[in-house]
Amino acid sequence: MPEVPLGAASLLSAAPVAGLGEDALTALIALVGDDMTACNRVIIARMDSPVALIPQLAAHIVAAGGKRLRPVLTLASARLCGYAGGERHVQLAACVEFIHTATLLHDDVVDDSKLRRGLASANAVFGNKASVLVGDFLFARAFQLMVDDGSLAVLRILSAAAATIAEGEVLQLVTQNDLSTPEDRYLDVVRGKTAALFAAACEVGAVVAGRPEAEAAALRDFGMNLGIAFQLVDDALDYAANQAVLGKTVGDDFREGKITLPVLIAYAAGDAGQRAFWQRTIEASEQTDADLDQALALMAQCDAIAATLARASGFASLAKRALASFADGPIRRALLAVADYTISRAR
Amino acid sequence: MPEVPLGAASLLSAAPVAGLGEDALTALIALVGDDMTACNRVIIARMDSPVALIPQLAAHIVAAGGKRLRPVLTLASARLCGYAGGERHVQLAACVEFIHTATLLHDDVVDDSKLRRGLASANAVFGNKASVLVGDFLFARAFQLMVDDGSLAVLRILSAAAATIAEGEVLQLVTQNDLSTPEDRYLDVVRGKTAALFAAACEVGAVVAGRPEAEAAALRDFGMNLGIAFQLVDDALDYAANQAVLGKTVGDDFREGKITLPVLIAYAAGDAGQRAFWQRTIEASEQTDADLDQALALMAQCDAIAATLARASGFASLAKRALASFADGPIRRALLAVADYTISRAR
Repeated sequence: MPEVPLGAASLLSAAPVAGLGEDALTALIALVGDDMTACNRVIIARMDSPVALIPQLAAHIVAAGGKRLRPVLTLASARLCGYAGGERHVQLAACVEFIHTATLLHDDVVDDSKLRRGLASANAVFGNKASVLVGDFLFARAFQLMVDDGSLAVLRILSAAAATIAEGEVLQLVTQNDLSTPEDRYLDVVRGKTAALFAAACEVGAVVAGRPEAEAAALRDFGMNLGIAFQLVDDALDYAANQAVLGKTVGDDFREGKITLPVLIAYAAGDAGQRAFWQRTIEASEQTDADLDQALALMAQCDAIAATLARASGFASLAKRALASFADGPIRRALLAVADYTISRAR
Repeated sequence: MPEVPLGAASLLSAAPVAGLGEDALTALIALVGDDMTACNRVIIARMDSPVALIPQLAAHIVAAGGKRLRPVLTLASARLCGYAGGERHVQLAACVEFIHTATLLHDDVVDDSKLRRGLASANAVFGNKASVLVGDFLFARAFQLMVDDGSLAVLRILSAAAATIAEGEVLQLVTQNDLSTPEDRYLDVVRGKTAALFAAACEVGAVVAGRPEAEAAALRDFGMNLGIAFQLVDDALDYAANQAVLGKTVGDDFREGKITLPVLIAYAAGDAGQRAFWQRTIEASEQTDADLDQALALMAQCDAIAATLARASGFASLAKRALASFADGPIRRALLAVADYTISRAR
């Protein structure tokens, strides 16, 4: 895995170069702009229900925005594969976003999160009960959309992804108080909870375009590695983000006692006293106000953030390599740039 | 709707005639016994996962038993329709049970239930987080099983049922503190949260047997009306069950402040003082130990339990009528007897 020389100090102190990385994602979104507009219309139309609380709650989380990265990947993958057969990719991109939204709703309940993308989370506003049930509704609705589309191949990919996501989330729950979790096992969590849906989102694009299995597999690889890179950078940003620029709060994962790669690296590198610190703050969730600064200092000491980003960079490289067999063109270039952006947003 | 003359007093005091009603369900299960054994094997095999907590938690709720009424309905419906093409009905019966189990897991979280069928509920043992996520897993796994089966018609029926269940549960949440909920609206809750899956379970049996839409519709009607009857009797039993015989605790719904048909009937029949009682105990969830006896007395006064069972009996009659077009035979007779049993278990 290629290592990228990065100093944790620069991450913690340097202001992100505004606009640099975002341009890559903006460029990709611009390339599938009409499709994305259509996809947003499908999302709004199909989250409706005679039970008014369902569209109200769904609108709260859907309107909160986010980057719509997963449906954009479906749309872009379909176009990369030359899909020009109609609106199927738009419908299926909406499915992908519904599955993602359902998992976010359940995640926030499971994590007892009060904020999502800087706004009050759906469970904070509407309660855990409604969030669980509306998540179930959106999940079921995603399958109804897939049935309308009629492709068993797509249904197979996304039902498997949904099962894998749940497995990843349960695995995360099981490992959440275990600082001795090996990195490989943590990567299994990441593959499940995050990367499986990236992979499926991309693979569906090839399937809808009727492309051969090798192309579908290449896009699946692209999505899987991109998803892992994305999550590892998220892990790093939680200990390094410039809150004002990225709309994130440093230390959310820490306060929730989450096992993430920077923590595992710092724990593995720590002496007995340092390990006791991590055991108290993460495993036992006993924290004081000064503990986050101490955590950041310990991470700086062993370059845990830089090491995490180096791992992420390795997966981003694998993602880019997976697109090698596709012909050059604006969509491919934009996807490669998004893989770079995944890493550059942390710098 | 036919009304059955029933005295609430006899319901509250008379010991159930042991074995009378149970025989009907036992007879049906015996008719599909080999299929049910095969279905149980599929359930055990397909709830497996490399993440050990998933089969552990799933086994807790699956092993708790229950009547497996829904998969039995799928198996019996398929046989009623002359299905003899293999094991598809067994796989799909397992799907139905997985969807049911997933909704139970989420229900217990939403209701904060500590008991399920007299045993500690999965959320009480494993926590709410694991219950939410394993529910998601079982739901996804159900769709994987359907994809393996390969019928888009079945996928359409069960994905629509899953969406309707979630809608019914959300509607229940919205109406849960509203004693002025009209009976029709409450029946919409019942159709969603309970009857939709009964209907789908039966309809799938006709589809797997390749029978025409009229037969599928008849079985859907049978299941829908049976499911409504089943839920209304459950509502009544919560205020009338002989705990020792039925393994139920009188007053669970009351203590949870649940709006059910007996409560709506008693509230509608009540004077100002009685309405204040229901508003305090159900809408405001302010209860003392003596309140359950008072609730039972108010229900007895207006025959609310008898009226609830009369409604249930009407739906059971509609269920039986839906089977009119099927030829006489042991399965049809057993299904008719189960509709009768649904009512007789409350006497």
